[in-house]
Amino acid sequence: MSKVVTFGEIMLRLSTERHLRFSQAKTFAASYGGGEFNVAVSLANYGIPVEFITRLPENEIGACALKEMRKFKVESANVIFGGDRLGIYYFETGAGTRSSNVVYDRAHSSMATIEKGSIDWESVFKDVSWFHWSGITPAISESAAEVCLEAVKVAHAMGITISSDLNYRSKLWQYGKEPNQVMPKLLQNSNIILGDIDTAFFMLGQDKVNPNYQNETSLPVLYDKLYKLCPNLQIVATTLRYSVSASHQRIGGVLYDGKTLFSADVKEVTPVVDRVGSGDAFMGGLIYGILSDNYDKQKALNLAVAACCLKHTISGDCNLITLEEIEKLLKGDAFGEVSR
Amino acid sequence: MSKVVTFGEIMLRLSTERHLRFSQAKTFAASYGGGEFNVAVSLANYGIPVEFITRLPENEIGACALKEMRKFKVESANVIFGGDRLGIYYFETGAGTRSSNVVYDRAHSSMATIEKGSIDWESVFKDVSWFHWSGITPAISESAAEVCLEAVKVAHAMGITISSDLNYRSKLWQYGKEPNQVMPKLLQNSNIILGDIDTAFFMLGQDKVNPNYQNETSLPVLYDKLYKLCPNLQIVATTLRYSVSASHQRIGGVLYDGKTLFSADVKEVTPVVDRVGSGDAFMGGLIYGILSDNYDKQKALNLAVAACCLKHTISGDCNLITLEEIEKLLKGDAFGEVSR
Amino acid sequence: MSKVVTFGEIMLRLSTERHLRFSQAKTFAASYGGGEFNVAVSLANYGIPVEFITRLPENEIGACALKEMRKFKVESANVIFGGDRLGIYYFETGAGTRSSNVVYDRAHSSMATIEKGSIDWESVFKDVSWFHWSGITPAISESAAEVCLEAVKVAHAMGITISSDLNYRSKLWQYGKEPNQVMPKLLQNSNIILGDIDTAFFMLGQDKVNPNYQNETSLPVLYDKLYKLCPNLQIVATTLRYSVSASHQRIGGVLYDGKTLFSADVKEVTPVVDRVGSGDAFMGGLIYGILSDNYDKQKALNLAVAACCLKHTISGDCNLITLEEIEKLLKGDAFGEVSR
Amino acid sequence: MSKVVTFGEIMLRLSTERHLRFSQAKTFAASYGGGEFNVAVSLANYGIPVEFITRLPENEIGACALKEMRKFKVESANVIFGGDRLGIYYFETGAGTRSSNVVYDRAHSSMATIEKGSIDWESVFKDVSWFHWSGITPAISESAAEVCLEAVKVAHAMGITISSDLNYRSKLWQYGKEPNQVMPKLLQNSNIILGDIDTAFFMLGQDKVNPNYQNETSLPVLYDKLYKLCPNLQIVATTLRYSVSASHQRIGGVLYDGKTLFSADVKEVTPVVDRVGSGDAFMGGLIYGILSDNYDKQKALNLAVAACCLKHTISGDCNLITLEEIEKLLKGDAFGEVSR
Amino acid sequence: MSKVVTFGEIMLRLSTERHLRFSQAKTFAASYGGGEFNVAVSLANYGIPVEFITRLPENEIGACALKEMRKFKVESANVIFGGDRLGIYYFETGAGTRSSNVVYDRAHSSMATIEKGSIDWESVFKDVSWFHWSGITPAISESAAEVCLEAVKVAHAMGITISSDLNYRSKLWQYGKEPNQVMPKLLQNSNIILGDIDTAFFMLGQDKVNPNYQNETSLPVLYDKLYKLCPNLQIVATTLRYSVSASHQRIGGVLYDGKTLFSADVKEVTPVVDRVGSGDAFMGGLIYGILSDNYDKQKALNLAVAACCLKHTISGDCNLITLEEIEKLLKGDAFGEVSR
Amino acid sequence: MSKVVTFGEIMLRLSTERHLRFSQAKTFAASYGGGEFNVAVSLANYGIPVEFITRLPENEIGACALKEMRKFKVESANVIFGGDRLGIYYFETGAGTRSSNVVYDRAHSSMATIEKGSIDWESVFKDVSWFHWSGITPAISESAAEVCLEAVKVAHAMGITISSDLNYRSKLWQYGKEPNQVMPKLLQNSNIILGDIDTAFFMLGQDKVNPNYQNETSLPVLYDKLYKLCPNLQIVATTLRYSVSASHQRIGGVLYDGKTLFSADVKEVTPVVDRVGSGDAFMGGLIYGILSDNYDKQKALNLAVAACCLKHTISGDCNLITLEEIEKLLKGDAFGEVSR
Repeated sequence: MSKVVTFGEIMLRLSTERHLRFSQAKTFAASYGGGEFNVAVSLANYGIPVEFITRLPENEIGACALKEMRKFKVESANVIFGGDRLGIYYFETGAGTRSSNVVYDRAHSSMATIEKGSIDWESVFKDVSWFHWSGITPAISESAAEVCLEAVKVAHAMGITISSDLNYRSKLWQYGKEPNQVMPKLLQNSNIILGDIDTAFFMLGQDKVNPNYQNETSLPVLYDKLYKLCPNLQIVATTLRYSVSASHQRIGGVLYDGKTLFSADVKEVTPVVDRVGSGDAFMGGLIYGILSDNYDKQKALNLAVAACCLKHTISGDCNLITLEEIEKLLKGDAFGEVSR
Repeated sequence: MSKVVTFGEIMLRLSTERHLRFSQAKTFAASYGGGEFNVAVSLANYGIPVEFITRLPENEIGACALKEMRKFKVESANVIFGGDRLGIYYFETGAGTRSSNVVYDRAHSSMATIEKGSIDWESVFKDVSWFHWSGITPAISESAAEVCLEAVKVAHAMGITISSDLNYRSKLWQYGKEPNQVMPKLLQNSNIILGDIDTAFFMLGQDKVNPNYQNETSLPVLYDKLYKLCPNLQIVATTLRYSVSASHQRIGGVLYDGKTLFSADVKEVTPVVDRVGSGDAFMGGLIYGILSDNYDKQKALNLAVAACCLKHTISGDCNLITLEEIEKLLKGDAFGEVSR
Repeated sequence: MSKVVTFGEIMLRLSTERHLRFSQAKTFAASYGGGEFNVAVSLANYGIPVEFITRLPENEIGACALKEMRKFKVESANVIFGGDRLGIYYFETGAGTRSSNVVYDRAHSSMATIEKGSIDWESVFKDVSWFHWSGITPAISESAAEVCLEAVKVAHAMGITISSDLNYRSKLWQYGKEPNQVMPKLLQNSNIILGDIDTAFFMLGQDKVNPNYQNETSLPVLYDKLYKLCPNLQIVATTLRYSVSASHQRIGGVLYDGKTLFSADVKEVTPVVDRVGSGDAFMGGLIYGILSDNYDKQKALNLAVAACCLKHTISGDCNLITLEEIEKLLKGDAFGEVSR
Repeated sequence: MSKVVTFGEIMLRLSTERHLRFSQAKTFAASYGGGEFNVAVSLANYGIPVEFITRLPENEIGACALKEMRKFKVESANVIFGGDRLGIYYFETGAGTRSSNVVYDRAHSSMATIEKGSIDWESVFKDVSWFHWSGITPAISESAAEVCLEAVKVAHAMGITISSDLNYRSKLWQYGKEPNQVMPKLLQNSNIILGDIDTAFFMLGQDKVNPNYQNETSLPVLYDKLYKLCPNLQIVATTLRYSVSASHQRIGGVLYDGKTLFSADVKEVTPVVDRVGSGDAFMGGLIYGILSDNYDKQKALNLAVAACCLKHTISGDCNLITLEEIEKLLKGDAFGEVSR
Repeated sequence: MSKVVTFGEIMLRLSTERHLRFSQAKTFAASYGGGEFNVAVSLANYGIPVEFITRLPENEIGACALKEMRKFKVESANVIFGGDRLGIYYFETGAGTRSSNVVYDRAHSSMATIEKGSIDWESVFKDVSWFHWSGITPAISESAAEVCLEAVKVAHAMGITISSDLNYRSKLWQYGKEPNQVMPKLLQNSNIILGDIDTAFFMLGQDKVNPNYQNETSLPVLYDKLYKLCPNLQIVATTLRYSVSASHQRIGGVLYDGKTLFSADVKEVTPVVDRVGSGDAFMGGLIYGILSDNYDKQKALNLAVAACCLKHTISGDCNLITLEEIEKLLKGDAFGEVSR
Repeated sequence: MSKVVTFGEIMLRLSTERHLRFSQAKTFAASYGGGEFNVAVSLANYGIPVEFITRLPENEIGACALKEMRKFKVESANVIFGGDRLGIYYFETGAGTRSSNVVYDRAHSSMATIEKGSIDWESVFKDVSWFHWSGITPAISESAAEVCLEAVKVAHAMGITISSDLNYRSKLWQYGKEPNQVMPKLLQNSNIILGDIDTAFFMLGQDKVNPNYQNETSLPVLYDKLYKLCPNLQIVATTLRYSVSASHQRIGGVLYDGKTLFSADVKEVTPVVDRVGSGDAFMGGLIYGILSDNYDKQKALNLAVAACCLKHTISGDCNLITLEEIEKLLKGDAFGEVSR
């Protein structure tokens, strides 16, 4: 199978354990994650060669992030080094009526201060068939947005499939530009877009969609508008998430290929062990599904939804799930049974 | 805002973690709590100046309790010292069909051996507008009941609003007196009473209420009887708790002001991280609601119910929840979302 | 009460905590368990004299298993020593859509290499009224199966009641024999059999039952066939388990005595703290129910189902539940309440 | 080997970990210990049948203490139940220049409120050859002292060897009597006394010994005086402890039999993992040495000193050391080597 | 006693536990510390009213730092809020031949971006008798240096005693200025300076001292030069530290008052639990010694050295030691003994 | 730099924490190690391309070992899969007079059941300049010894430098052959041998050396004999270890090249955090020293000794130390200082 490259920031995640609030914690669980890295780990778990591009500080904390990449078989040969610090996010796991809480401390990170021209994308993309980026990278700093644009242009020129997760984070976009000033250029070359139509239109500077859009008749119409705005678009997909509580989610998904709207059954997700990275798990499942030999859009969507559901049972950002477990869930085997 | 004073016992709480039984535990999580202290922490979290009065042993364990008060901005200038020990309660968190279990080890505590006249209540209550006590204090020892009565009398004489949580604990009341010998005098001066009507009548020596009382027509009639027994009563309120399992509760509440019966919608609470102190969270929310500028009984009740629900998601006795989180829940915003 | 003897393997269980995957774990929780040992612990908790027979390695890890037996008041005077190692199983607790996972590492254990004739069953069974074994022991090795057969024969000859849990484990039975070559002889002398009819027929070399068997009319017919195959059979019982997810089970049970089919109400079990050993908890409850003075088949079945439900709330293999807790659940008392 | 009985209090020990101060601890390590119980565990580890007599509360915490006894093969058939609580001591492990710190919370314990006549000593001492008690029991309450005296009298009358560890604790003896009012009667019947001569004289109401006593010439003279005060005395022994710091001790010992003064080489003990119970480990070693077939006073003393040294490497009160490890240390084998 | 004010940065400290390297850690112990805050905690522990001035981010992590101040009775009324983040330092505890390692992540912290004029020093210093700052604050950013200079000028003008710990950190001073461009102005008004003569001369732009300076004859000559450079200087003191290994230090100290050179005995410090903050503990002891009624320079120095030694036994930055423990060490009482 | 290959077994190590005995542990720390893997990690840390060859079971526990290899940048492309289980060793860290204790549970591991011919050594050794094996592999099973011999023969034929650590483990060699029946053939082709002369002669079937051999005059004579027995031998080296206690070691080393005996200064190692793998750390340092451009035997020996010392400060088998830290120690810089 040919290689996938993802590009973005990997952060140190400092989580309280057992639903503790920050003020109760004497220890933080330390793990490493970030949207595009999480996608890479998913793919590595499914046996796809995958490389992650980022910028790390030259200190022991950066070295820990690098070790984590290697541990999960994500290639790191083109990681660049420099800058002051590894970005951090603090995480408090909610429960029931209490939402989970993220405190970002990622400003001034090595990735945020990456410089234009510092990555040789032609070299990175040799023997690569797929490039994935998300809306987080252009949100962290102007230079990160610029490097992302460099990547997208080179990938497109080299005929590489490009996937983009819109991933809007309201706490980012602090450097003076609005998403609609930055994202349209970036999304021009996307072949696969993950995200809800509202976010897509917002990032592309379109008017907000009427809230009643989410029905099977009107969605294709709206998506068709998106296809016009993004001329290379082949597939648009989105998770459908119904949040009963912080501990109980219902997860479905839709996929549109310009002609047909596919949709997947909604699954109950309870309890939620950790929902961070569940969108990345969907993305990983979707890429795998599309890349696999027996490509079938409905199957790819089902796989993406199942991967997303299973991610909610895993601590940390990364979806440490095997293909076998996804298939078991899809087959509807009594999944509460102990395997022994 | 003028100051609130609460009076009672603070204990060391020794909890097993992750649903372990006592016999499985090699460590106990150590925290500090007690009904009236828990109310003080709620109020401090909401920005209200609050002081806690208690008696602590002059040893390192007492010092830990004192540090906990300060940490949560509960004033401690009038804490008195003496006696042998800090009371303890051991706690095992249940799950599903297994109830949580409390083993009290609070006899002979410094608070239980507090002596009449040892607190200068006139001085304590200077610049104070509200005094809160609960039925736990008169339950632990005769002298504690007497000091509580001193406090109530002085507070009443000084025109301070008095709130009382009935808080009946069958494992206490071991010193030879029955609640109905002690509580009527104490409740004489209460302006706000928290507790179900059954407990209220039991503590006031009245006959048990017919179990069908809990309807919106009959409750005011029963409450009116309570108003006659407690001539200073302005508001009576109670949590309505439906226990599906140790991990799933349904929480509502009612409030009566002598004329109108207000009721709050029932909320689903699942999973239960820790339900100890959820009644105190209700009380804290109610006091805050009544004290706030835009006082509205329905809003105060809603706030109390929301605070009570959110407490179930917090480990330990104290309701470490912000006003913003309560308001988010009340507004019905999709609370399962991660804030990022 | 006269003594019960159980015979089987006790293993070191290495579990990840808080739903971590093996690859995330830096520590494993260490506990000790195994089907027949778990039954012994249940009985000891209910006050019944009980002894466990096994073979342990003469090293510090075997000594830990022995200390665990003693801790829970399971007699160990006839444990024999020898062989290389204590069997291990690694355990990962699932959640929601992710199943729990067992990795066995029990081959070549001291119990698997037990030798024929190494236990003096006549001496072991002196003053014993009940012998319990399960289908795990004949599944681990040929010699373990042989020693089990020795035990069954001696027990039968001495007039001891024999109970058998079929306990089929597909990952075992690796030594070259099929269950139907081994189990029929063993089950000949069983008075009580625990297991579903499908497993029973499979182990006895009968054709698979039509899936529609589980109704109240057809079950007795099928069971009657079992009575013919096992001439000493008095009672056959089984847990009825409906697996909603790894975190949510529904548990009922049926018991047949050759004439009447008893069934117990289905109970909701959520969340599942740990379901390993819940069948053993059912078995333990059933034995206790049958042994108790006021023996009543419906009560024994209800008790077995309640014990099984409560086990799901306990970490580790062993059902650390008291009779009082079982009775509280059976009485339907509001079990979510905190006892204080 | 015939049985040893020890009598005293077992407490819950709540320790901070990794040298944390109480105010830093969010968890306490929970273990169970007490001078006379610790001696029993030592003896059980050496293969001697041993029983511990105490009084426990009838609650889950008392049940934990009982499970600990059983785990370490200390018989518990004559434990009695009643009273309010299991005594507690809080423990902070020192390091270097900072001493370890004990906060007692053992007043009003079940053992402190034991009642005269509540133990049938004649029955307890059947088939028993040795009885051990220590100066802690008469220090906790008057009734405990009285029950201890009952035990001593019965034991003496039945011809049982009696050993006594003086174990003076200045934080105890709070019930209105001085050691010299209580201990002389108790020590009358002692055959073996463990303790330094200063403590012995203090407890027997004698003048303080001149600090220069500790030389090999004068000690026998002082000990001879002790023999006169305790007419049944056969052996007096003491640990010699030189405290370099909380992390570094030097341990030696002397033993006198009325004729000869034996002394053991001083050993370096560093680091100190936990020194609580090291005197009990000495006592356990001494009893074992005297009881063993090839009784030799010098060997018994050496064994006691080695056991004491090794105890300093074990967390918790109990000396979890094997005879093989003691012998290895005594043989002077390179003990820093990893055994593999 | 009149109040002390200290000014500086408080950071989140993320430490690996049990000597783990960063790459081995799955959890970081979270605590809060910083040179000047640590001094404040020491003083609060000794009963001196003390306030800490800093700038915190308005997020939950800043709130944790604030709670830590309150917990240890350090006043926080004049803390200001703003900026992006709480500074962090990662810490790996060394052992033996392996040094401890600090990775700073404190750039861009709220304290580093403090703005000139943002603190009303006249108001802060009302009723204050002592102001303490250290060389860390002017090292983190130009604006922090400027605010420090504002404080020093106001304090001097108001007649407040000023103490300064030179605290040179080579990993700081990254903003373009050298210590000798910044420190001379700041040290002009210092009455007490803590630091070695080498660092003092380096910061004041003097030539390096000949390495042989550390003898009792030449030191006063060098110090006299310092007195000329700092016209308000009354006392200069320094810890003398001999580093045997990361686990073994030898600590002494000298104090000069312009006339007499006092020196304290060197103490052995082994093992080292945590040496961060031991200089701050010296400073805290020195301030306490000078402030105490019976002021005696030798006693103040001894106290400072003892406090410094004891700090090495405490985890975290803050010296959680009582005056009683310091005095016990100074009296030379057998400090390895368990207090019970 | 050209690649090094090491071959051997990697095990799951289950360690008790904080000096706990096995019977006290409720959790085991899980890590992965083994002599030849440990050498590989050292080399990877020093920047040398290195690959580890082993056989792993195809289960999740084998997958964890593989992830650990990758994490530390040890290549794993030629690892083979099969067999039943990952070998285990249980580890209890000693302290002071108590030795550390290893309980092996590695029989029947995937590596022990490796089959002759299952590794294509010609392919493995392409572009490889160094092959390292140790005496553990031929000790675990006959087939492992045979595969080791295959490797040695191919490596020798391909002109690869071969290093061998004698690593005698008395608890292994259980399969019916003595070291002197197996090792001579294996050592024939060794260029570098690590081990003391006693072990070397024992493994080569020579008479035991007189204990007085360890002086600088006689050692070369003995070594010369070794050169005769191993015709390809170029360098023989050994750690000199003086074990003061489990917590205090003194480490030196000697190296002989057939002409000159080099020796390194003895260093104090205290405390010992974990000594397992310290010999492997010596080996790793030695290989690095010899491979480095500026090869100098004295420097290589010094580096090996320093690496060995530093390993004692690291938890787990692997020497997670950088070249910078080794050089800092060699330069004699004050290594107790905190780097900040």
